[in-house]
Amino acid sequence: MIAMIKPDTDPAQLHSLTGWLQNLGLKTYLTQEAGHTILGIVGNTDAVDMTMLTGLSMVESVRRVSEPFKLCSRGFQPADTAISVGDGEVKVGGGHFCLIAGPCSVETHEQIIAVAKAVKSAGAQILRGGAFKPRTSPYEFQGLGALGIEMLLEAKRETGLPIITEAMNPAQLPLFEQVDMIQIGARNMQNYDLLKEVGRLKKPILLKRGLCATMKEWLMSAEYIMSGGNEAVILCERGIRTYETYTRNTLDLSAVPMLKQLSHLPIVVDPSHATGQSHLVGPMALAATACGADGLMIEVHNDPPHALCDGAQSLTPEEFYHVAEKIRQVRAVVTMNSAVTK
Amino acid sequence: MIAMIKPDTDPAQLHSLTGWLQNLGLKTYLTQEAGHTILGIVGNTDAVDMTMLTGLSMVESVRRVSEPFKLCSRGFQPADTAISVGDGEVKVGGGHFCLIAGPCSVETHEQIIAVAKAVKSAGAQILRGGAFKPRTSPYEFQGLGALGIEMLLEAKRETGLPIITEAMNPAQLPLFEQVDMIQIGARNMQNYDLLKEVGRLKKPILLKRGLCATMKEWLMSAEYIMSGGNEAVILCERGIRTYETYTRNTLDLSAVPMLKQLSHLPIVVDPSHATGQSHLVGPMALAATACGADGLMIEVHNDPPHALCDGAQSLTPEEFYHVAEKIRQVRAVVTMNSAVTK
Amino acid sequence: MIAMIKPDTDPAQLHSLTGWLQNLGLKTYLTQEAGHTILGIVGNTDAVDMTMLTGLSMVESVRRVSEPFKLCSRGFQPADTAISVGDGEVKVGGGHFCLIAGPCSVETHEQIIAVAKAVKSAGAQILRGGAFKPRTSPYEFQGLGALGIEMLLEAKRETGLPIITEAMNPAQLPLFEQVDMIQIGARNMQNYDLLKEVGRLKKPILLKRGLCATMKEWLMSAEYIMSGGNEAVILCERGIRTYETYTRNTLDLSAVPMLKQLSHLPIVVDPSHATGQSHLVGPMALAATACGADGLMIEVHNDPPHALCDGAQSLTPEEFYHVAEKIRQVRAVVTMNSAVTK
Amino acid sequence: MIAMIKPDTDPAQLHSLTGWLQNLGLKTYLTQEAGHTILGIVGNTDAVDMTMLTGLSMVESVRRVSEPFKLCSRGFQPADTAISVGDGEVKVGGGHFCLIAGPCSVETHEQIIAVAKAVKSAGAQILRGGAFKPRTSPYEFQGLGALGIEMLLEAKRETGLPIITEAMNPAQLPLFEQVDMIQIGARNMQNYDLLKEVGRLKKPILLKRGLCATMKEWLMSAEYIMSGGNEAVILCERGIRTYETYTRNTLDLSAVPMLKQLSHLPIVVDPSHATGQSHLVGPMALAATACGADGLMIEVHNDPPHALCDGAQSLTPEEFYHVAEKIRQVRAVVTMNSAVTK
Repeated sequence: MIAMIKPDTDPAQLHSLTGWLQNLGLKTYLTQEAGHTILGIVGNTDAVDMTMLTGLSMVESVRRVSEPFKLCSRGFQPADTAISVGDGEVKVGGGHFCLIAGPCSVETHEQIIAVAKAVKSAGAQILRGGAFKPRTSPYEFQGLGALGIEMLLEAKRETGLPIITEAMNPAQLPLFEQVDMIQIGARNMQNYDLLKEVGRLKKPILLKRGLCATMKEWLMSAEYIMSGGNEAVILCERGIRTYETYTRNTLDLSAVPMLKQLSHLPIVVDPSHATGQSHLVGPMALAATACGADGLMIEVHNDPPHALCDGAQSLTPEEFYHVAEKIRQVRAVVTMNSAVTK
Repeated sequence: MIAMIKPDTDPAQLHSLTGWLQNLGLKTYLTQEAGHTILGIVGNTDAVDMTMLTGLSMVESVRRVSEPFKLCSRGFQPADTAISVGDGEVKVGGGHFCLIAGPCSVETHEQIIAVAKAVKSAGAQILRGGAFKPRTSPYEFQGLGALGIEMLLEAKRETGLPIITEAMNPAQLPLFEQVDMIQIGARNMQNYDLLKEVGRLKKPILLKRGLCATMKEWLMSAEYIMSGGNEAVILCERGIRTYETYTRNTLDLSAVPMLKQLSHLPIVVDPSHATGQSHLVGPMALAATACGADGLMIEVHNDPPHALCDGAQSLTPEEFYHVAEKIRQVRAVVTMNSAVTK
Repeated sequence: MIAMIKPDTDPAQLHSLTGWLQNLGLKTYLTQEAGHTILGIVGNTDAVDMTMLTGLSMVESVRRVSEPFKLCSRGFQPADTAISVGDGEVKVGGGHFCLIAGPCSVETHEQIIAVAKAVKSAGAQILRGGAFKPRTSPYEFQGLGALGIEMLLEAKRETGLPIITEAMNPAQLPLFEQVDMIQIGARNMQNYDLLKEVGRLKKPILLKRGLCATMKEWLMSAEYIMSGGNEAVILCERGIRTYETYTRNTLDLSAVPMLKQLSHLPIVVDPSHATGQSHLVGPMALAATACGADGLMIEVHNDPPHALCDGAQSLTPEEFYHVAEKIRQVRAVVTMNSAVTK
Repeated sequence: MIAMIKPDTDPAQLHSLTGWLQNLGLKTYLTQEAGHTILGIVGNTDAVDMTMLTGLSMVESVRRVSEPFKLCSRGFQPADTAISVGDGEVKVGGGHFCLIAGPCSVETHEQIIAVAKAVKSAGAQILRGGAFKPRTSPYEFQGLGALGIEMLLEAKRETGLPIITEAMNPAQLPLFEQVDMIQIGARNMQNYDLLKEVGRLKKPILLKRGLCATMKEWLMSAEYIMSGGNEAVILCERGIRTYETYTRNTLDLSAVPMLKQLSHLPIVVDPSHATGQSHLVGPMALAATACGADGLMIEVHNDPPHALCDGAQSLTPEEFYHVAEKIRQVRAVVTMNSAVTK
């Protein structure tokens, strides 16, 4: 850890700081440059309260030499992690590419069965569907809840596809016992009590990036889950908030190769929520595949009511079929010789 | 509600859409301009799923005429809300200015009592202190928990100051029975299950703005609490995330007069977390007062270990004493004649 | 154009507004909904000062029905534009994919010739190189200027590659007479006097997106050039500013398919400046190709001093050779059947 | 300067880097911590190309110990700068508070004279008015140009108020000979050729912050002007771009005390453009004054056509009169004892 000390700092204050750090069992080194003092701090620097240290009047800035994440870091585990889902036939990461598809919300028994069959035949390996829905407004539809999970389980029995659905609250977790993968949504990425709870489970967690989360914060949230004992974490990029208004969010695809360097965890991309427009889903799905994503999560619905929805955020089964085909072709090109995307 | 329909939309599709809307009990009006069609939708438009409607291929954009928030809106209640805290002697809003102060975290019995006495003598009316701490890293100190609340209650008994502290999880709420005001932190602003739970309580909730929340989303989260039956919501601006790195966050003070126009709820500003630097706390506290805030929440600690912390994010009791004095002077100027800040 | 009028607006004021609009030759229509009044304004609404109208106390918001850009819009010209560069053998857009490559700055005669030959043999069709360099600090190297352009022209004579380099000032333009394509950098995207000047030229302009420019503003800057008579504008996405710090900027690839819908102009992606890290250049180049970009601009240098630069923002010629190969493969997949990326 | 070297870096490569740095006349120091190597670089580090160094594959990150700005830094000149405007009676900074007011655009002879008289009688010391207007669209009114400057000069002769107006292009500067202060707009903050030109003049320059400029970039642009010989630079905060849409931009008032610490230059705040709504101008003007701004620039117009504009971005003369009165009162409180706002 390196702290920049401001010019004209009282030497007595600085001495007091180094003494305090040494009491924490750390070694300190001082260097001078251009009037500034650089304080090197070596040892178990986790013991140091960064906020406190950064806030000291004599301190200009503080920087950790090593990243604060450990279990999820590439340094801790050099090889890519492959995560088994359900009975273990489906894998994500470590060379395994995974297509997750399904409707935004579970609506009816018929809908979810029909979509499940359609996406399976197009090559999807996991079925998604929302049962508990985080909605900005308390007056909007909040999802079918437990009933929605029931319907997903029926679709699973019918098609054999493992299922993923979102949990919003530790108290809901008992309902998720037969769910194969639990999604933590963007708004709950820093709901630490929820992260701790799913960290005690033994099933894969798909952790969506918060709407304004840095990659570092996102990895720290993965670390919350992993430090609880559950190492089956899949990261899911779903767009960040910027000033741009033509697209709902800004899909940050450079996070894919960047995270590949920082972490061994699989990374999946959700182009449907990020863009909010079906005509952008196909191109961004291909782009995500091209830059090395380990999978995609795409919204598909089967029953556009009154033929209204053929252009909504969701793809129709037919559109999904064609996109999935292209995805496999792009994936084939990318993995033919992995030198470039490494 | 107004929907812009894309040029060259198939009239049959448009007819299907208007039929669907009419089935929902809504009236529709069509106008043409420059090749575009404007679809006016009148009635109880809450029934319409905005995401679905916006996503339709024929729809360019959709806009609600009235804001989606109701209970918290200025239109619903024209007069400013004054919220009573504790035994009712302290009020926030509706002309009542409130100074909340205390340490970031409750650390020891002695610390919290000493700070409580110091801030009370400087004019603070409510004591703050963190017992459950949301930390980015699972390896950082997570707060004293229940013990911290005990210590706050002792400080309350000793000084008579009502207390505020943060809840992170519905399961913790029983511990907050004697707490006078509950803080919902920035990371939990869209933890809807938590919002619903505190919406069932009968005590004031201080709702911090999420790090990348729009004012509209923030008001919608207030709406979650109020629609549960708890109308005692205080909004707290604490900085938003931007690209600027010299300050920790960007304190958005224009939110103060803007929210005064949109809502009747009191708004309090936290300059300590927003800036992260003690030398900015005083100036930003005065600025917040000058633009019409109903109160301030300021970090104060008493025991700078080894004299290290005199410039940290927290103010010393002496610094707080001087800032509080200035705040009262600025407040006096601002309220002398309220024409300007309205 | 649609203006939302605030509830409780004085009818006399509203009457005054509609009268004023009618005097501008416009037709007005009033509709009421839920206490709000909706004012439709039809006719040549370019005559209306949006800022003034939006700022009126009675007006809640204003929205144009049609986009403010015309010449660059897809509506104005449905077919993709193909732009010829140099003697016309190289084309960008309209089905023509173009690889632009070269060093960040022109440094020496030997360097630029060597890089030009290397990138040509790897398949690049246009040579890039900076002669005038916009630098954040006045103390940094500002480029070789006119001499740099001379060197580029030598490289052009030697290899036959058309050249592109950046202009920063109308006064420099006479030096660019033999340059095949002029780059307008991100910082000058709204330097309107410069845009007007290059709008008078008869050569292709590559217009980089400003660091915090919306797509709409970017298209409006293209409109500045086109309305001056020069319709050969190529858009170049090069990353936007967000709060993320692991990457230099956030490459907004969803801009590619989004702009394809809004405009007929070609769009090129610069993954080198956006990411600032060579290990991200390859993956993001493939992603840009996969989502439908009409070309790429990639930094390549040949002479890593002291073998230091093999991982810098620039690729080595060898790395570029491999990336270019992959790009062609991804491009082949994407264009095999264009249904998806439309 | 400190560079973090990645773990597992080839010692030969590192040796090559240190050799290269030593050839540039710099001293290098290596320290090891937790597998990482820290490379300290001491000497005239301006010679090092930061982009190149940061981009090296072996380098994790680079940080300058001292800030890159010099002439504008507080370290270079500890005392606040006071800048004289016009004949020297008006000063900005160094304890002198300055009120700049006037219309957005100069429209007619009568308008500018009337506004000038009105703002002077309310206490304004400098008259503003736009002659050359940067507009997002080429189809919008671009200002009266030279004629607008003529009208401003008439208003100056009539009232004695010094004038400020915006220059967009080096070629325009001869028209500004009698203008007392030149404004560089937000869009031109990094138009380096323009900055260099006004750096050769001998009159005050008001440098607006770019819409997405960091404080560091803004100070570097001030440095461009000062390094040319013109040290009379006034910084003007006018709001930055964020995701918030209720306000036009987000006024970053914490920049005021932050810049006071970093620089000796005066800082002025423009609440009119930042917020875009007249009802926010008063509160934000008071807030800016409260946190230590050296002045304000406020839009005022006199002739609301058809009584439409009483709530536009501009204040009426009467509103301005009342705001100016309050501003003086807040300023009096703030300067009574400057301990807090330092």
